[in-house]
Amino acid sequence: MTQTALALTELKSLLNEVCDLNNANAVLGWDQSTYMPSGGGATRGRQMATLEKIAHEKLTAPRTGELLENLKSYEQELPYDHDDAALLRLARRYYEQATKVPSEFLAAFSEHSSNTYLAWVKARPANDFKSVQPLLKKTLDMSRQLAEYYGYDEHIADPLINLADYGMKASTIRALFAELRSELVPLVKTITEQPLADDSCLLQHYPEAQQFAFSTPIIKRFGYDFERGRQDKTAHPFMTKFANGDVRITTRVKEHDFSEAFFSTTHETGHALYEQGINPAFDGTFLDNGTSSGVHESQSRTWENLVSRSRAFWSYYYPSLQQQFPAQLNQVSLDTFYRAINKVQRSLIRTDADEVTYNLHVMIRFELELQMLEGKLAVKDLPEAWNAAYQNDLGITPPNDSNGCMQDVHWYGGRIGGVFQSYTIGNILSAQFFESALKAYPDINNEIAQGQFSTLHHWLKTNIYQYGSKFTANKMIERATGRGLDIAPYMQYLRTKYGELYTL
Amino acid sequence: MTQTALALTELKSLLNEVCDLNNANAVLGWDQSTYMPSGGGATRGRQMATLEKIAHEKLTAPRTGELLENLKSYEQELPYDHDDAALLRLARRYYEQATKVPSEFLAAFSEHSSNTYLAWVKARPANDFKSVQPLLKKTLDMSRQLAEYYGYDEHIADPLINLADYGMKASTIRALFAELRSELVPLVKTITEQPLADDSCLLQHYPEAQQFAFSTPIIKRFGYDFERGRQDKTAHPFMTKFANGDVRITTRVKEHDFSEAFFSTTHETGHALYEQGINPAFDGTFLDNGTSSGVHESQSRTWENLVSRSRAFWSYYYPSLQQQFPAQLNQVSLDTFYRAINKVQRSLIRTDADEVTYNLHVMIRFELELQMLEGKLAVKDLPEAWNAAYQNDLGITPPNDSNGCMQDVHWYGGRIGGVFQSYTIGNILSAQFFESALKAYPDINNEIAQGQFSTLHHWLKTNIYQYGSKFTANKMIERATGRGLDIAPYMQYLRTKYGELYTL
Repeated sequence: MTQTALALTELKSLLNEVCDLNNANAVLGWDQSTYMPSGGGATRGRQMATLEKIAHEKLTAPRTGELLENLKSYEQELPYDHDDAALLRLARRYYEQATKVPSEFLAAFSEHSSNTYLAWVKARPANDFKSVQPLLKKTLDMSRQLAEYYGYDEHIADPLINLADYGMKASTIRALFAELRSELVPLVKTITEQPLADDSCLLQHYPEAQQFAFSTPIIKRFGYDFERGRQDKTAHPFMTKFANGDVRITTRVKEHDFSEAFFSTTHETGHALYEQGINPAFDGTFLDNGTSSGVHESQSRTWENLVSRSRAFWSYYYPSLQQQFPAQLNQVSLDTFYRAINKVQRSLIRTDADEVTYNLHVMIRFELELQMLEGKLAVKDLPEAWNAAYQNDLGITPPNDSNGCMQDVHWYGGRIGGVFQSYTIGNILSAQFFESALKAYPDINNEIAQGQFSTLHHWLKTNIYQYGSKFTANKMIERATGRGLDIAPYMQYLRTKYGELYTL
Repeated sequence: MTQTALALTELKSLLNEVCDLNNANAVLGWDQSTYMPSGGGATRGRQMATLEKIAHEKLTAPRTGELLENLKSYEQELPYDHDDAALLRLARRYYEQATKVPSEFLAAFSEHSSNTYLAWVKARPANDFKSVQPLLKKTLDMSRQLAEYYGYDEHIADPLINLADYGMKASTIRALFAELRSELVPLVKTITEQPLADDSCLLQHYPEAQQFAFSTPIIKRFGYDFERGRQDKTAHPFMTKFANGDVRITTRVKEHDFSEAFFSTTHETGHALYEQGINPAFDGTFLDNGTSSGVHESQSRTWENLVSRSRAFWSYYYPSLQQQFPAQLNQVSLDTFYRAINKVQRSLIRTDADEVTYNLHVMIRFELELQMLEGKLAVKDLPEAWNAAYQNDLGITPPNDSNGCMQDVHWYGGRIGGVFQSYTIGNILSAQFFESALKAYPDINNEIAQGQFSTLHHWLKTNIYQYGSKFTANKMIERATGRGLDIAPYMQYLRTKYGELYTL
């Protein structure tokens, strides 16, 4: 073998170990959330920290840097699309990210986050923002410090946004969100001036086993492969991946709210279809993951909202649902059911929000994050700023901080900066990708109305899924849709769908 | 801190990482056997190999050797019973074992074993010993080579026996087994000349859920803590441990054979009680495991046989069993049931053998292993030697190699040497420990007849379980029973129990 081939083999083997450690850690995390007895908890945390530490040590070892240096000219000679080129780009990015931050700082930040999380768990139900305020202040300071370690050209939030949505910038997202906000605020106002949809049909008793009997064949039809995955119950639903051939989803069932399990199942299935659709040759490499949080969220939202909350979908599946739950639904028309699952209302809690208001919740958080990082908003003034933003954008003021600025775990269990934008980027992208899929295959909606999803799945797999992390989000959006992130398809989707449901 | 304290802290932290990696690997193994979808199989093998490799690298790192060297004088000053002394002894033993064998040899042996296993999986049902013979020959050569790497004073099998039953020697075990054999062969002959017990009552339909409804409260009464463990179904039952607070068992259920799930559940519970009973301060250290395979097997056999196959046990539980399965058992007397679960017969398959004949199966294998390692038996002559031994000891000749020398996975999936003796050592020890427990608490059998197991559990925990690997098997047997391994209690147990069932 040549020196280059030898170096490449050694680097791949080293990175493969890092991936194996990360995937093993994911198994431990999955077990912790599904089957682990309570007695296993204390030790499991330490075991997961050990695997993470060893993976970090391997990635940041001087040898990794040497090999990357030795492979620089090889990388430059490769065509951009070559798998090795993509792998080396990604390895270089992760290596540089990981080596920029002193490991003592990371450990201290991680410990601080754990402590803040524990304080928040107590403070939230007690509506006691004061008690977490100093901790959150420190989180802000450490988040700023983290950004400084990474370095940035434009905005201090950019390197933090990079961690989830590589290549996106505060300035671009801010402009995009301002545009979206200017369209959404009046739309929400118009809709919420009209009578509230009646969703009482969803709040009847739906036995768990029958819920699964209904949803399982549907996610199989979407393309979720149970030979390469499985579904279990957890307190908080998630998708996790251990290998190209082992992509699992979890679900929380509420027997008195049909929406809960069904839409979280189709949501997590969207994440899983992305991961199951990645080129199997990428197994055990950095390429074997979705390329960014925003693109990932676009897929969960596609299957949850654009598919599973569409009239086309229910025109096909509602009779089956009635058959599964005759006592609950035989007297409920498709129209009533469809309005119920798409009920729009001004509400306080992001995770309970509908498609139309959801992004307002996200954008409020994104803007507050930026202002805190910029030093324009002090942590002590967060509750006031939060409430003012809710009054301004959603027309309601939280009665307390528990249902206000303390409702989400993100800031209290991690950092401030780059932790919310992916949700809205995902919503925007879901419509942008879907529009391109429709351009290529105009029959997709008719197929959905026949319970057929293979054409949509095929387009998504061909244009997005198969590439894993081979291309950055920006590059892939450009390749798949011919342009950058664009809110027009998403606004058109909302206006069409909700124009039919409400007088707009 | 002093130099010694610093070195000790560093060593403990290093060994803790090795334990965390091994325990993480056990989680991956458990998942592989219980819930992993088929698509995960290929990658899982590699992930587990990676964790094993990294654990091996950490254990054999030069730094480990330096620290052990630096701590030598500290270790020598400590009292033998000190936890640090035990940890350092064990760390030194594992380090020396692991560094004696070149890692290339281990990798080659591991690859050869995988290939041999795959060949055996095909060859066994085809009754094709010829096809695996050259592979098994290589296994023998590599097993001998492995023993040479470890080194030995007396017998080439000694270092291989050490891997499972540290401190036991081929010569001692051989002598003990010869003595046991000389007593068992005539006992089996006497029993099997009498009419076979009728076990048809066990071979009725026992629905799975009801089997668990019966067995779960029993293993809780034994002392198995479900807050620190759980039970799942697998193709082959096993016990596995991820932490002091997370010790799991698995079970295989046959709905047309009551014995299968019930006795494998009480067997694995025995293993689990040992692990759950270890001093929680040993969590995450080398001390947090049973001390040897033989001692471990003594505990599975205690709870499976001495407890769960005893007349005392069933005099209490048989009415509950009849209540759980009235159609199956209301017409079956306790006496008939008791004879059925203790049916003795000459049979070909070790894993199906009863308490009396079981050890003959094991001792045949142990002796053949020794002869192969000594160069006195060639692999090509194994089938003939196997069949002759069965004819001699059990009075039957296997009709083919599938049910003869190809029945067990041990040689075909691993090495030759030290892989069978633990089963019989466990049987012998179970009676020896039980005798000592009875001496301390003569009421134990009466308590079992009342469905009470806490005194027995207490004695075992106090004298065996709590110590984990702190003492070697030999040391612990001596401490708990006042003497070395001794077949007398076991033979007395068999003669008493089967003397009541048969005319002896």
